[in-house]
Amino acid sequence: MSLFGNVIRLADRVFPTTEAHAHCDIPCGIYDPHAALEAAQTVIRMTELIQELDLNDPASHHALARYTNTKEEHGKKAKDDLLIIWTDYFKPEHLEKYPDLHTLVWDACKLGSKAKQNVDMDAAVAFKAAIQKVGDIFWETKQ
Amino acid sequence: MSLFGNVIRLADRVFPTTEAHAHCDIPCGIYDPHAALEAAQTVIRMTELIQELDLNDPASHHALARYTNTKEEHGKKAKDDLLIIWTDYFKPEHLEKYPDLHTLVWDACKLGSKAKQNVDMDAAVAFKAAIQKVGDIFWETKQ
Amino acid sequence: MSLFGNVIRLADRVFPTTEAHAHCDIPCGIYDPHAALEAAQTVIRMTELIQELDLNDPASHHALARYTNTKEEHGKKAKDDLLIIWTDYFKPEHLEKYPDLHTLVWDACKLGSKAKQNVDMDAAVAFKAAIQKVGDIFWETKQ
Amino acid sequence: MSLFGNVIRLADRVFPTTEAHAHCDIPCGIYDPHAALEAAQTVIRMTELIQELDLNDPASHHALARYTNTKEEHGKKAKDDLLIIWTDYFKPEHLEKYPDLHTLVWDACKLGSKAKQNVDMDAAVAFKAAIQKVGDIFWETKQ
Amino acid sequence: MSLFGNVIRLADRVFPTTEAHAHCDIPCGIYDPHAALEAAQTVIRMTELIQELDLNDPASHHALARYTNTKEEHGKKAKDDLLIIWTDYFKPEHLEKYPDLHTLVWDACKLGSKAKQNVDMDAAVAFKAAIQKVGDIFWETKQ
Amino acid sequence: MSLFGNVIRLADRVFPTTEAHAHCDIPCGIYDPHAALEAAQTVIRMTELIQELDLNDPASHHALARYTNTKEEHGKKAKDDLLIIWTDYFKPEHLEKYPDLHTLVWDACKLGSKAKQNVDMDAAVAFKAAIQKVGDIFWETKQ
Repeated sequence: MSLFGNVIRLADRVFPTTEAHAHCDIPCGIYDPHAALEAAQTVIRMTELIQELDLNDPASHHALARYTNTKEEHGKKAKDDLLIIWTDYFKPEHLEKYPDLHTLVWDACKLGSKAKQNVDMDAAVAFKAAIQKVGDIFWETKQ
Repeated sequence: MSLFGNVIRLADRVFPTTEAHAHCDIPCGIYDPHAALEAAQTVIRMTELIQELDLNDPASHHALARYTNTKEEHGKKAKDDLLIIWTDYFKPEHLEKYPDLHTLVWDACKLGSKAKQNVDMDAAVAFKAAIQKVGDIFWETKQ
Repeated sequence: MSLFGNVIRLADRVFPTTEAHAHCDIPCGIYDPHAALEAAQTVIRMTELIQELDLNDPASHHALARYTNTKEEHGKKAKDDLLIIWTDYFKPEHLEKYPDLHTLVWDACKLGSKAKQNVDMDAAVAFKAAIQKVGDIFWETKQ
Repeated sequence: MSLFGNVIRLADRVFPTTEAHAHCDIPCGIYDPHAALEAAQTVIRMTELIQELDLNDPASHHALARYTNTKEEHGKKAKDDLLIIWTDYFKPEHLEKYPDLHTLVWDACKLGSKAKQNVDMDAAVAFKAAIQKVGDIFWETKQ
Repeated sequence: MSLFGNVIRLADRVFPTTEAHAHCDIPCGIYDPHAALEAAQTVIRMTELIQELDLNDPASHHALARYTNTKEEHGKKAKDDLLIIWTDYFKPEHLEKYPDLHTLVWDACKLGSKAKQNVDMDAAVAFKAAIQKVGDIFWETKQ
Repeated sequence: MSLFGNVIRLADRVFPTTEAHAHCDIPCGIYDPHAALEAAQTVIRMTELIQELDLNDPASHHALARYTNTKEEHGKKAKDDLLIIWTDYFKPEHLEKYPDLHTLVWDACKLGSKAKQNVDMDAAVAFKAAIQKVGDIFWETKQ
């Protein structure tokens, strides 16, 4: 019995329980690789913006500092979001069905570090693709 | 000309330029109300979890402290994400077409504050719905 | 009745209730545009420091990275502090009396983004002036 | 010579150089005890709000969690802001003139910790008063 | 050749290169499980402090909110620090020699989540022990 | 009596109470200068990495931005960790025995600011040495 009056469970009507987004370890049951993918896409975009700068023009280095920071932060965010799904959403039964899961996540994180440490479009694109692979497994387990 | 070698613009092939998600003020052109909606949904979920606690049992208050914090953080995140779209994505021409935009954003934020300050499912649900309204305008402007 | 003994309300004697500074959404009733103004002033100062660098000297780019970061952080802080006052302090009756309020806040935030994205003293100065305008309304409503 | 065009030093006209607010360690020369005082005032306000709760009503514990967090964060912020002034603004010549400075700052911080660890209005009020003492020295050195 | 004058590599004399602490992904080569262990120990301590509270006394809930937050933050920090070592320090050759490494890290993180979500001394102690196991492998690879 | 069942005090068996690491102001009694030292070491390492860059090559400035940020963050962290020990661990009786303590901490922080503001290996090394001095006093007081 709740102290906050009539628990009318409006939430049940607002979103179907089969839908699953999640991202905190309350656990609230809302897991979703979307945020990691979007952050990885920002890493791609920042890499592109840096590549388009004419760094021989010193005035461009103000933008370089900003893009580098944003690449760094979103690279970290993409890794963190992926790792929350890995540590909190996936269960031993998923491992049995997808024995490569640990390696996929590990490889994705290493690509994320590479994309942060360098201005490397191949690494940035591969980073997002690696997260997508884990995301595909995630969505398969939700069906 | 880039100093980072051949700019092959892989990014162009990875995601279509008509697709638009965005959330930083580089500006990187990646705006998306999805993150705000997901955070608002977490506020709904935390409100529900708090309502389901039996607060007459003191042992439940460990969970209360955690859910309250998570509600607070995600309520703040939802507001912040919405405000980035408002201040950085929307342009004067959008205002002309959607003269209620400022009021919609303002009302949404006030609902977010209400959902943070209270354990109030009506406010939490209305908060998400208000973000959705702004999101609908956002997607209309993207077409 | 409080569980923490004699509530002597020392606070009432320490600061007059007519005085109003505030900045969190408890709500605690302590709102003050001062913090936003000070952060905007830091944006001005960082812009000035960057302009004074000789960027043709590569050794100056260590300072450039630091000043750019500080400009970014304080630009964000100024916007955030202003938006808290807008979403949490101002009430519908203020809007009636100051119908331009939404536009003033929106314009201020856009100037803040401009001052972050560029090394632009005009934008930085205009950013602070725009916050001051909102601050003037704030103080008028407090009388 | 700046790469960013005509450095017109608008900043010089916007605020007098004798005015001194500051709070980052660029150093930007903008030091001001105001932020620390405002944060300490929030600690007082949160202490008061907690004291006014009826904690025998379990429903009040949602507010308790929020006020406690805000007290904690602003207590930390007040200490941090004070310590930046201590470590970065004050110089050896100030120490000669105000030999108690170290002790005043240390005592203030210990009061801040006490106000965070307890619901103690005396500690909260004394914390703000101790910051004010350091602030008085600060303003004397600015004349 | 450095622009910052004589690079005398004092660092080489200050700490032996065989010593390895590290924790950022520059990569700087300074990895060390110590920080994760200390954070896990704080989780143990917070669990103990919560267990010692008399929660039937409502006045104890101020402390409950603080301990719960600190447990949460340090549980997160311990997981984050461990995951940095996993994703950035360990290389494929380590995996060959320690094929259980992925599972050990995964199990440790799941224990960390359990220790955060509950007031569970067994989980807290097992969390630290699991980090210690990974740490033992880390130190073996450093020899 | 605890509400969380049998308080078996496993913690007592896991680490001896004479052992003292600590770093939060719960207070949890876990103080340790180790974290400050490690952060200062990172400042040394970042200074070295910056000095090794060829800044005449504009492509190196991506790394410069990253190293500068990391130096900044860890310099701040080292100062913060040291100040927590100063404000929360040391007691008046320690001051009596080590009357230079305030000055040692103050000097260490000023060196930290210098190491952040410049690419200065002497300052970075002296910063770490100054923390070590405070650490030596800390460990003497623990015996």
